[in-house]
Amino acid sequence: MTTVDEQRTDEQRTAVFRPAGTPEGLEDLRTLVNTAIDTLRDAHLVRRGPVLPGGPPAVAEAARRALEGPLLPERPQAPDEVFRELIAAYANWAVDLTHPAAVARMQCPPTSVAIAAELVTATLNQSLHAWESGPFALELERYVVRELAELAGYGTDSGGTLTAGGSLSNLMAVLAARDSVVTTPSGGTPFADGLAGLGRRPVILCSDATHFSIGRAVGITGIGEDAILRAPADPTGRLIPDELDRVLAELPADTVPVAIIACAGSTDEGWVDPLPELVAVARKYGVWLHVDAAYGGGMLLSPRLRGRLEGIADADSITMDLHKFGWTPASTGVFLVRDAHSLDALSQQTTTLNADDDKAAGYYGLYADSVQATRRVDALKVAVTLRSHGRDGMAELVDRCHELAGHAAGRVAAEPRLQLAAAPALSTVLLRWLPGTDTDADAFNGALRRRLMSDGTALLARTRVPREDGTNPVFLKLMLLNPATTPEQLDLVVAGIVATAEAMEAAQDGPAAAAPDHGGA
Amino acid sequence: MTTVDEQRTDEQRTAVFRPAGTPEGLEDLRTLVNTAIDTLRDAHLVRRGPVLPGGPPAVAEAARRALEGPLLPERPQAPDEVFRELIAAYANWAVDLTHPAAVARMQCPPTSVAIAAELVTATLNQSLHAWESGPFALELERYVVRELAELAGYGTDSGGTLTAGGSLSNLMAVLAARDSVVTTPSGGTPFADGLAGLGRRPVILCSDATHFSIGRAVGITGIGEDAILRAPADPTGRLIPDELDRVLAELPADTVPVAIIACAGSTDEGWVDPLPELVAVARKYGVWLHVDAAYGGGMLLSPRLRGRLEGIADADSITMDLHKFGWTPASTGVFLVRDAHSLDALSQQTTTLNADDDKAAGYYGLYADSVQATRRVDALKVAVTLRSHGRDGMAELVDRCHELAGHAAGRVAAEPRLQLAAAPALSTVLLRWLPGTDTDADAFNGALRRRLMSDGTALLARTRVPREDGTNPVFLKLMLLNPATTPEQLDLVVAGIVATAEAMEAAQDGPAAAAPDHGGA
Repeated sequence: MTTVDEQRTDEQRTAVFRPAGTPEGLEDLRTLVNTAIDTLRDAHLVRRGPVLPGGPPAVAEAARRALEGPLLPERPQAPDEVFRELIAAYANWAVDLTHPAAVARMQCPPTSVAIAAELVTATLNQSLHAWESGPFALELERYVVRELAELAGYGTDSGGTLTAGGSLSNLMAVLAARDSVVTTPSGGTPFADGLAGLGRRPVILCSDATHFSIGRAVGITGIGEDAILRAPADPTGRLIPDELDRVLAELPADTVPVAIIACAGSTDEGWVDPLPELVAVARKYGVWLHVDAAYGGGMLLSPRLRGRLEGIADADSITMDLHKFGWTPASTGVFLVRDAHSLDALSQQTTTLNADDDKAAGYYGLYADSVQATRRVDALKVAVTLRSHGRDGMAELVDRCHELAGHAAGRVAAEPRLQLAAAPALSTVLLRWLPGTDTDADAFNGALRRRLMSDGTALLARTRVPREDGTNPVFLKLMLLNPATTPEQLDLVVAGIVATAEAMEAAQDGPAAAAPDHGGA
Repeated sequence: MTTVDEQRTDEQRTAVFRPAGTPEGLEDLRTLVNTAIDTLRDAHLVRRGPVLPGGPPAVAEAARRALEGPLLPERPQAPDEVFRELIAAYANWAVDLTHPAAVARMQCPPTSVAIAAELVTATLNQSLHAWESGPFALELERYVVRELAELAGYGTDSGGTLTAGGSLSNLMAVLAARDSVVTTPSGGTPFADGLAGLGRRPVILCSDATHFSIGRAVGITGIGEDAILRAPADPTGRLIPDELDRVLAELPADTVPVAIIACAGSTDEGWVDPLPELVAVARKYGVWLHVDAAYGGGMLLSPRLRGRLEGIADADSITMDLHKFGWTPASTGVFLVRDAHSLDALSQQTTTLNADDDKAAGYYGLYADSVQATRRVDALKVAVTLRSHGRDGMAELVDRCHELAGHAAGRVAAEPRLQLAAAPALSTVLLRWLPGTDTDADAFNGALRRRLMSDGTALLARTRVPREDGTNPVFLKLMLLNPATTPEQLDLVVAGIVATAEAMEAAQDGPAAAAPDHGGA
């Protein structure tokens, strides 16, 4: 009898559809990938800033040209032409995260080895929900999660999963915390009874510096954002353990504290809540402690900085994003729990996955560890990136970003017209231009940021920073996640901000005062 | 003054960290990608089945060898060596989705053009939450979502988002439905009041064929799985509109119907609920109608099959997965809403994203359309895949899978010892081996599936199918999502199943009866 394998090759060669994973498809892929790399190089070489100038109208116009016509034209079009046109537009009008002035968001410029791993991940298209969806991928995910848990100081009873990002990790944390206090009058799982099983009004405790994804998670899980109680914080925004203790002691009897959410690396200033003290308070009241270390978790990689995360190993759950400090492309979310059983509510029975006899024979997947079913494999890029850099290499990358922030802060402080919010705690620098007293400083800084974007000279973030005088002004933010940037380059970025602000002021005083400040001319 | 751009090149060349997006990093990437493609080709050529033989113990042993040692060794290791070793193990022990006998799960073998797009996506690492995180990527996502909404028949008021998979799309659907009935006594958003604002006991109506991710979504959103009311269905598992009408009319006064969940392509048999009639019932009672077309949504691409989805354009929300029919790698989830305002509960204010003055100037992202913040761009692979295949090409791919199912069903029906569950509705074939009366058929079919996996000859799914005699036996399932497979190859897959079952029976009758049936010897 001819086997399937003997029969395949000739027939597949003539087929209209060539999957990427066959030898013929792989050669198509090689050609396309070379085109892609050439296109990315060309886009990089012609660009003179972190983004092309012109702002939203110019991007909209570029999109109109590149995306003209239907997504599904009637007839097939030559793949290489479609591909070349679309990726050229995509690359030309992308933010160049390798540029020293692309410091607007917590997106790192990823390493080549991580990108090559993504190619393998995508081509093989394994999934993690069942053994037969990706047998080796499952082992790899378990290995990566276990080693990350160990890095955080968790023991062998811990569990966790890679996720599609920090927001989903935080959602899983709120879920695990919620389900730890839901009683189950029906005798079923916390999932079965829902919030009706709660009995009392839920309360979530955190500070004002807590990331907005926590609010969303509280909304999604049905607890309701009104349940969030902002506990007193010190001037840097960090929770005050004694005050939190008092708040918990004074909670009304008809309420139930669901979780304390601690921040390890606030996205603005990079502060870490006092974890050891929060652990003590959480234990005293038997309340779930979640540490959102989406940003600050990278300090675990640095012997110099990891002391700031002391206590994290005693938290009930941890969020980390390796697409921030970690230099893998998004998404590389991480969610860890100190006790693997905290995820039990997710392990429903299904008729199609992980039957008991299969499980007994070793054929089962990670469906029950995640809120997803089909789930792309993010572990391969993590494994190759961390292994190829090693402890020393990763530490150096994190430390460099931290040092760059220190350098940039010094440079900002030396500029008389720039105000620095505070010495950088981790790798962000908060600054604002101080215009004359007759100008609205918030509006000016907002406009300055837009001008830099529409000029294509710098991409900054923006936020508001509570000041000791009770105000909450707009600040601009540099987020430094590119270890290849040099201090000298950052000097030029800061100088560019100053020059643009000065030019805007000069224009306001001069005849061009009526010109629009945004949208690109 | 030297500009940042003039200063970059020389310094970056000597840096320890070379991001993939720089010209030097791109050359590193080219080398690694060539290694990757060679490794994938080698793995493909040596493999004689959809997976290497040996089952879980063999995979565990391979993982032990490949993953020996810490994820973070002290010193950096040569990237190309780490990479080659890990991807060789990953590829060798992966499920080969291009193999005709890899029919266990709804994972498609993706096209080369989609994979090359993933490389671009990963290298540029854009995100969709803010303008400055990916200006062109935002335009592309909007374009792709709009065109997919149009494909579903939605109008210009519709909205939606790409998601990390069908489970998250279904979560968003339950969330939107929930928030459409939550009253807001505080005058805030549905998110603010949570389920406390519901007042009455929520009810979710669906059939037994509804995907388990709906149960999860109902659990996550705090509604509680006990709120799920399985409405009467016909023998194929489809909701009966008149019965649903009666159930709704008879709901107790202290309950509130939150949503009707319709199935468009059940994962086992591929049936579609009677959508036009369900639309009428949903409208009569003012209840949210969600259509989970994660699997069946692909029929929109086929003129021959899309009539089966008639009525979908009148649903309030739709889930689709382009990583099933769509031939892009996971994740390519799609969530569509008929009225874009259905997602308003997600658009909280934050201090860091989309300030009003930025928004007025066109600088804003898609943060408010999704449950994520940083979000990877899945639209590029969709755009290049759909455009390069066109309507005719995509229709042909979907139709081929449908035809393959018909062919395989015929082949199964012709085997006296195999039982076919029913004529295939879409692209799955349900079959089981009929052992002698003294053998537990469920246990035998479970063992048969494991034997095929541990032999490395075929990967099938498994489920239970309710029969007219009231039993619910184990069936095995072929999920046909590879249009490159030929009918002749499928004949051999079925023949292989028969031969293995016969060999197992012979062994049971003979001296080897005590041999273990699983785990691979």
